[in-house]
Amino acid sequence: MSVANAGPYGGPIKQNYPRNQWWVAAMSEEVTRDPRQRWILDYPVVLYRKQDGTVVALDDRCPHRWAPLSKGWVEGDNIVCGYHGFRYGPQGTCVKVPTQETQPSLARVKSYPVTERAPLIWIWTGDPALCHESSPPDIPWLQDAGWRGSRGYMEIAANYMLLKENVLDLTHFGYVHRSTFKIYDWNRAPSVDVENGQVEFRLDFPAGPLAPIFAEMTGFGSRPISRVNWGRYLSPALQHAGQDFTDPDPQPGGRQQVSFRVLHATTPVSPARMHYFWFFAFDLPLSQDQIDRIVALTLKGFKEDDDMISAVQEMMERDPRGVDYPEVMVATDRSAVQARRLLQKQLTAEAGLHSEPSLPQPP
Amino acid sequence: MSVANAGPYGGPIKQNYPRNQWWVAAMSEEVTRDPRQRWILDYPVVLYRKQDGTVVALDDRCPHRWAPLSKGWVEGDNIVCGYHGFRYGPQGTCVKVPTQETQPSLARVKSYPVTERAPLIWIWTGDPALCHESSPPDIPWLQDAGWRGSRGYMEIAANYMLLKENVLDLTHFGYVHRSTFKIYDWNRAPSVDVENGQVEFRLDFPAGPLAPIFAEMTGFGSRPISRVNWGRYLSPALQHAGQDFTDPDPQPGGRQQVSFRVLHATTPVSPARMHYFWFFAFDLPLSQDQIDRIVALTLKGFKEDDDMISAVQEMMERDPRGVDYPEVMVATDRSAVQARRLLQKQLTAEAGLHSEPSLPQPP
Amino acid sequence: MSVANAGPYGGPIKQNYPRNQWWVAAMSEEVTRDPRQRWILDYPVVLYRKQDGTVVALDDRCPHRWAPLSKGWVEGDNIVCGYHGFRYGPQGTCVKVPTQETQPSLARVKSYPVTERAPLIWIWTGDPALCHESSPPDIPWLQDAGWRGSRGYMEIAANYMLLKENVLDLTHFGYVHRSTFKIYDWNRAPSVDVENGQVEFRLDFPAGPLAPIFAEMTGFGSRPISRVNWGRYLSPALQHAGQDFTDPDPQPGGRQQVSFRVLHATTPVSPARMHYFWFFAFDLPLSQDQIDRIVALTLKGFKEDDDMISAVQEMMERDPRGVDYPEVMVATDRSAVQARRLLQKQLTAEAGLHSEPSLPQPP
Repeated sequence: MSVANAGPYGGPIKQNYPRNQWWVAAMSEEVTRDPRQRWILDYPVVLYRKQDGTVVALDDRCPHRWAPLSKGWVEGDNIVCGYHGFRYGPQGTCVKVPTQETQPSLARVKSYPVTERAPLIWIWTGDPALCHESSPPDIPWLQDAGWRGSRGYMEIAANYMLLKENVLDLTHFGYVHRSTFKIYDWNRAPSVDVENGQVEFRLDFPAGPLAPIFAEMTGFGSRPISRVNWGRYLSPALQHAGQDFTDPDPQPGGRQQVSFRVLHATTPVSPARMHYFWFFAFDLPLSQDQIDRIVALTLKGFKEDDDMISAVQEMMERDPRGVDYPEVMVATDRSAVQARRLLQKQLTAEAGLHSEPSLPQPP
Repeated sequence: MSVANAGPYGGPIKQNYPRNQWWVAAMSEEVTRDPRQRWILDYPVVLYRKQDGTVVALDDRCPHRWAPLSKGWVEGDNIVCGYHGFRYGPQGTCVKVPTQETQPSLARVKSYPVTERAPLIWIWTGDPALCHESSPPDIPWLQDAGWRGSRGYMEIAANYMLLKENVLDLTHFGYVHRSTFKIYDWNRAPSVDVENGQVEFRLDFPAGPLAPIFAEMTGFGSRPISRVNWGRYLSPALQHAGQDFTDPDPQPGGRQQVSFRVLHATTPVSPARMHYFWFFAFDLPLSQDQIDRIVALTLKGFKEDDDMISAVQEMMERDPRGVDYPEVMVATDRSAVQARRLLQKQLTAEAGLHSEPSLPQPP
Repeated sequence: MSVANAGPYGGPIKQNYPRNQWWVAAMSEEVTRDPRQRWILDYPVVLYRKQDGTVVALDDRCPHRWAPLSKGWVEGDNIVCGYHGFRYGPQGTCVKVPTQETQPSLARVKSYPVTERAPLIWIWTGDPALCHESSPPDIPWLQDAGWRGSRGYMEIAANYMLLKENVLDLTHFGYVHRSTFKIYDWNRAPSVDVENGQVEFRLDFPAGPLAPIFAEMTGFGSRPISRVNWGRYLSPALQHAGQDFTDPDPQPGGRQQVSFRVLHATTPVSPARMHYFWFFAFDLPLSQDQIDRIVALTLKGFKEDDDMISAVQEMMERDPRGVDYPEVMVATDRSAVQARRLLQKQLTAEAGLHSEPSLPQPP
């Protein structure tokens, strides 16, 4: 147990997000030929698709009179400002001022590097020269027809790391989700590994009855099933999680193993708000009706998380002790503390600092 | 008449509340086995009852991840954090972290001294070592079966002293409440006494017709009745007021005297908001129907006060002259000025200052 | 083309309004015997009419307890504070404190110079000694029975100069109003003249079909009509605009010329909000039904402007680049840039500064 200042928040709530990395800007179906505004890491971005379907991300502020380009429309591969008709190409160059022949060379908006790996559209808001040094992670099940599930989007009034820390300590299941997911045995500290800038926790559960939603969806019903539950902090943008169910006594015609995956992508709107994109799937041919029921339950559960972390955010903003107040750490915080440490390292590197601040020590 | 800066506000709207005194946290019926959050003097407090019915008031911020404890629940005499299940006893000690055997000794929340004198629950948010040097005032009629009345709660978007000053100058009756309470003879400066850190004003009215609501409730009807109306500033937390009606020509079987009492308890949420608890009663066996009618009228009148003092608060916040602007004082402000002076003395003492700031002088 | 900081905004959004000039406080019909509150150039003002119909404008903050006088009522030519009944005359002198015989000489509110030229009520919030050095402009058609039209009021969440710049560059017609006003030929830079502290632009259109609303209202129908469209920045408070239509081949019994006028009056509420008063008329005997249809279309169009400039205001407030970010200027910005330059000169003069800041140069 240790008491320490909360690393990434230290002081009034402020930017705690590295810019030189890929963040999720949108889900593929959210970006069309109609321009969409999305505030990302404090800045306004407009997203649209070119005629060939590729995604364009531009600074959403016309340098002429500062109108959001997203209030305009797309013609060909260009976006037309809805205020005075200035037209910008996908690289952000002004290709036409309607009232004159020559285009002002300084009329240019920033174009953001974008990578689409459906169903995810990734954006790089930092130094564009560095964007080729890394690439968004591959999450194969997201596009595998053998995996059935769903996805969705919420905006949450909380710092994005509050959701990261939520999914890095699943002991909250027995409290926040006690009446929804009904998983009551997440009551021990998992094993934690830090490798390649990622944090992975893992907890093995001996054979026992599954929570109702898993009992039903996996088809294992009430028979005792063993399972492994793991979560992996891939970057400040992404948490990957899974449950692998094993039937110790497989039935004729029944599966021995079923897998379940979840992806939590968080992107800061500002220090106090986040975009939250979620994805889940089973490696099972679930019916639409089954999926609908999982989604209904999941949304109820995510609302519980939203309520809780928004309340924590309110504490950080409204309580006079703010964020300069010690937190108590216990063994189950090891994953979150390791993730904070990686984040702090990344922020320090990005700021060009070589000294490392003292960090909370997990017990 | 004098012009002076508003003592307690001086400068941008700020904390003008002493902490080393008893404040009303809630009415008895508001605190149950279900934890309730209430922000008091800037801090979040959770209130609940133990099995024996006594009230517990704890810092409403779990030191683990800063979740409000009030989002959890009570088990036995302990409160369970709704995020990860940390359990705290009534003294604020962490008695159980569900995932481990040993409890971190630093996991502890502040426990506030509380005194219940039904229907009031009092809290002490200052130095706990000093809480035994004073006790909440006794208001006997609040629990006397011979007194019939009602009580209620409002949150008002104004500094708590704006309500204090409202009830310390009842000449506002003829203006703010001209169409509700219909009391038009409160048009002179009352006598004012300052004694034992309290301010009392008193105004005698010669026999005359009563305002409709009093004519009806007292049973005196339209006959001329004399009355005394007084108000007493007991502390920044409490204003006690009364009207004593006397029939100069008592009727056979009729009362010669009837008394009416009001209690205004205000507790700062923050410098710009207050909790307002109100109580009234007559020493009469009023029917529930009569009480309901008084409550309806009272709520209308209190809404008029709310509108007015919220408008004053808006001036203080929005007008560029803010609170550093002279106020004009007249004779009827004597009670309010004396109360401000007592408050300033209390704030100065609490700040450990020995110099006394110059204060507005009542005429 | 040039890139420069936005003159009047420079830095965080701040006051960019001169006080030593006439601003529109209200339309005539808005001010009655019932006092009305209006925040003007950051300060609260109460407006009412005396018995003889003349308009009074007073500081809307009673110096006694800071209640808005506008929550009170008018008796004779005086206003009564709705809190404790202090009574003020039209010059702002306290003429009666109800509870005493002598009136405190310091109880006085500021009285603002006001000039009514129906349907406009003008106010001077600066140095009153200077108010006679200028007078509100005369706009004869506003009161000419030969001109038929309408007027209205909106509050817009944007700096008042954003509306000024909107009406100083009518190339926005083809974009913002493409589906309402349907004027598609405003696609060239107009000629611009600066004279006597005013900016006038003018654009001549050769004979051609009119936009539907003008085709109908002028009675010219689908025949080719030539027109001149001009706009004049009279002061930071007022933009005057007109269209003069000429039939090159007048029909028997038909008009050869029809004129249309618009007045845009803007008054800052604060740096980020404005009062917007609009007026239009044709020199034609339009029916009420015709007027109603123009109003319906106009309100739709003004809502489009409101949406656009409120979005620009949001950029200025929320985007971290704020207002210290270069704007790109093109030829069609000449009118707006000249108006900014005049405004800057006025602000500099008012601040008693003799150095002139460098300003954006129109191309």
